[in-house]
Amino acid sequence: MKWTRKHLLGLQDLSAEEINIVLDTAESFREVSTRKKKKVPTLTGKVVVMMFVEPSTRTLTSFSLAARRLSADVVGFSKGGSSITKGETLIDTAKNIQAMGIDVIVLRHPAPGAPHLLARNLDASIVNAGDGTHEHPTQGLLDIFTIRDRLKRIEGLTVAIVGDIKYSRVARSNIWGLKKLGARVIVVGPATLIPSHIEDLGVEVCYDLDQVIPECDVINILRIQLERQKSGLFPSIREYARVFGLNTERLSRAKHELLIMHPGPMNRGIEITPEVADGRHSVVLDQVTNGVAVRMAVLYLVAGARG
Amino acid sequence: MKWTRKHLLGLQDLSAEEINIVLDTAESFREVSTRKKKKVPTLTGKVVVMMFVEPSTRTLTSFSLAARRLSADVVGFSKGGSSITKGETLIDTAKNIQAMGIDVIVLRHPAPGAPHLLARNLDASIVNAGDGTHEHPTQGLLDIFTIRDRLKRIEGLTVAIVGDIKYSRVARSNIWGLKKLGARVIVVGPATLIPSHIEDLGVEVCYDLDQVIPECDVINILRIQLERQKSGLFPSIREYARVFGLNTERLSRAKHELLIMHPGPMNRGIEITPEVADGRHSVVLDQVTNGVAVRMAVLYLVAGARG
Amino acid sequence: MKWTRKHLLGLQDLSAEEINIVLDTAESFREVSTRKKKKVPTLTGKVVVMMFVEPSTRTLTSFSLAARRLSADVVGFSKGGSSITKGETLIDTAKNIQAMGIDVIVLRHPAPGAPHLLARNLDASIVNAGDGTHEHPTQGLLDIFTIRDRLKRIEGLTVAIVGDIKYSRVARSNIWGLKKLGARVIVVGPATLIPSHIEDLGVEVCYDLDQVIPECDVINILRIQLERQKSGLFPSIREYARVFGLNTERLSRAKHELLIMHPGPMNRGIEITPEVADGRHSVVLDQVTNGVAVRMAVLYLVAGARG
Repeated sequence: MKWTRKHLLGLQDLSAEEINIVLDTAESFREVSTRKKKKVPTLTGKVVVMMFVEPSTRTLTSFSLAARRLSADVVGFSKGGSSITKGETLIDTAKNIQAMGIDVIVLRHPAPGAPHLLARNLDASIVNAGDGTHEHPTQGLLDIFTIRDRLKRIEGLTVAIVGDIKYSRVARSNIWGLKKLGARVIVVGPATLIPSHIEDLGVEVCYDLDQVIPECDVINILRIQLERQKSGLFPSIREYARVFGLNTERLSRAKHELLIMHPGPMNRGIEITPEVADGRHSVVLDQVTNGVAVRMAVLYLVAGARG
Repeated sequence: MKWTRKHLLGLQDLSAEEINIVLDTAESFREVSTRKKKKVPTLTGKVVVMMFVEPSTRTLTSFSLAARRLSADVVGFSKGGSSITKGETLIDTAKNIQAMGIDVIVLRHPAPGAPHLLARNLDASIVNAGDGTHEHPTQGLLDIFTIRDRLKRIEGLTVAIVGDIKYSRVARSNIWGLKKLGARVIVVGPATLIPSHIEDLGVEVCYDLDQVIPECDVINILRIQLERQKSGLFPSIREYARVFGLNTERLSRAKHELLIMHPGPMNRGIEITPEVADGRHSVVLDQVTNGVAVRMAVLYLVAGARG
Repeated sequence: MKWTRKHLLGLQDLSAEEINIVLDTAESFREVSTRKKKKVPTLTGKVVVMMFVEPSTRTLTSFSLAARRLSADVVGFSKGGSSITKGETLIDTAKNIQAMGIDVIVLRHPAPGAPHLLARNLDASIVNAGDGTHEHPTQGLLDIFTIRDRLKRIEGLTVAIVGDIKYSRVARSNIWGLKKLGARVIVVGPATLIPSHIEDLGVEVCYDLDQVIPECDVINILRIQLERQKSGLFPSIREYARVFGLNTERLSRAKHELLIMHPGPMNRGIEITPEVADGRHSVVLDQVTNGVAVRMAVLYLVAGARG
């Protein structure tokens, strides 16, 4: 099978075969980041625009490094001072950028569906770097890459995703990707943060972390958005940490080869204790390293599909 | 004739011959942006500093892409956190940047004459990317380039510039350039937004858009600065749109080959309706595309004139 | 002797020999900035991250140009919108960046000791670009480079540092470096801005600028932080300018070959008059030019020491 997609909008759209193409391509790119000279000429003369309407230094840096490692030119386009603040429509802004002669737009936007809107209206390749609470496909892909790299398979594994499932694009992209590749997915969190009908995506729901832990091959801990607390969706930080925080005691019943993941940035002492974050199960820094390789693969594939 | 200017400060200073040199050079660079590998080695090892004291993502991105497409190194120098906010004079800040070993400073500044001040005090080449309400020469050049590209001449054409003439550097640069190349220029807008004595620049003044339309080869619609409304210079957005907004009905009396231009970002539904903005007369995205080629030409010419 | 340090944290740590290695290396790099093609391939494929938690356009631009002139890839990581504002620890943020495959982190941070903390916890090279009131080693090195370049030695020279000694990392780095190389250092300023026990660093203290001037080979004027005035540490700007401001009259008793330095940005008319800032003793722009060469040397040396 050959990759033919010009855009990467979400893992919901991809087939298992397509996900595997990204993972295999990332595999071959990963080695570049370990070289003394971290650079290949693959995308020389191509222009990648980082259009981050919602700020995110971490994802922006990862995508920028990925693009540069492929020798692409990277141009930023942040919200501050942009025409976005002058009332121009997103499509007009993007069409303008496109008219300057660019190849790929990496879009982070607070509105679910924003990258799909651009994909329908532009010729450039669109890569979704997070659209509101909808999807964050490269995060999903790097999480799956990390699991596959460590446990040598996805099919048949049990993966728990713990925390604020309702508002998490990371959860959503992981669920789509993992299910397509044959994993069993359990979502765990307070009832207020689990969306109704989530079972329709093929996942199981559990409100008791301790009950789930012994069965897990992977636990993906989501970041608690402290600002969400005000809305009364969970009683207190202390309470959350007590019921859903991952700590050493809780892990005493875990499988030996359990992987613990976190998309970062971590609230140490809340959803994860420092001991667990830095402990032997943790692969959080592998996720970051693999993120660059996965994003290199995505940029390479979508740019190549433009013909 | 040969280009000898180290700076580009405004179209008021240029001769018709010099304007044509920029346009011809842009013509030859335009093709680079359509290549798969959008890059020529012309300015390798040269350093272009983007000194945007007033924010503007659009112009900044266009200049940055132009510089990179010529293989120059691009360094940003934005207002936020800069020594400009620490009370240093503009000349001291610029001399400091210059002392770091740079070739060209692209300056966007709210004060009319700021680039001229730098040109008198520095050795680096200065390119004016907009100085207050004074000039925005590369916008003027890209507008003229777009007209020449589409209509194959400038001389003898009738160009209307519509809107806030008083505070528009785009209007001023267009007027200087178009008049030098032999066009007839009519400025159109509310009396409060047309400066007195504007006729001294060789333009005609009209307060009735409908009267002007049938004669026009080009209509350049300026962006209405919504923040200016508070000052009472025009009664209401609704009123402005009714009297000076370009819509399909109004265009029924236009020439078949009329070009409609807008420097962006557009206020759709105010100075221009969506139908007209996306309609067959509109060349707004060509302007953007040509902007990169024109800026490549300008950077190439001023850097070359440094000897 | 060979350079073996992976980090540059402060001049307090360096030996005289190590300081001289940096200066000699900078000497050989300085010529690159005067070429038409300002670029050498020394660090091609290396990645330098500019982690400026405290804003500073001037130092950031200097480091960025230094890195690019060595052909390194430069990635920014500013405070705005970064995970730093999301409550992540500095070490977690830096480890994340490191996990993306980078070689050098240039850190500007308001907390004294922040770069040392990273150096202890990371594998990447750390370069201190200013840590609170503690050290600003590359500023110290470029000041010393400029003196050595002009006066052909450091040993035996008398250098006065004038102003807010208490809160100045520039003062501290200069003192460490100059003393190690055998200079005599006198600190001059209001009693409230001279830290007690400063003599322990081997410097002399004087409260009378006029008394010191005739003996000086170099006067390094510090920037007065206008915002500090509120704290009542000195009575008024006018008073400060009168007692410690450097003006032509005061310099009538100076040595003929006296050098006047200022780390910038200058408050003209306060700590230094415009006549002196632009006068024949002033080497402030040489400092800026040399800053790029010194930073090229530092990046080259620490990246090389990583093996």
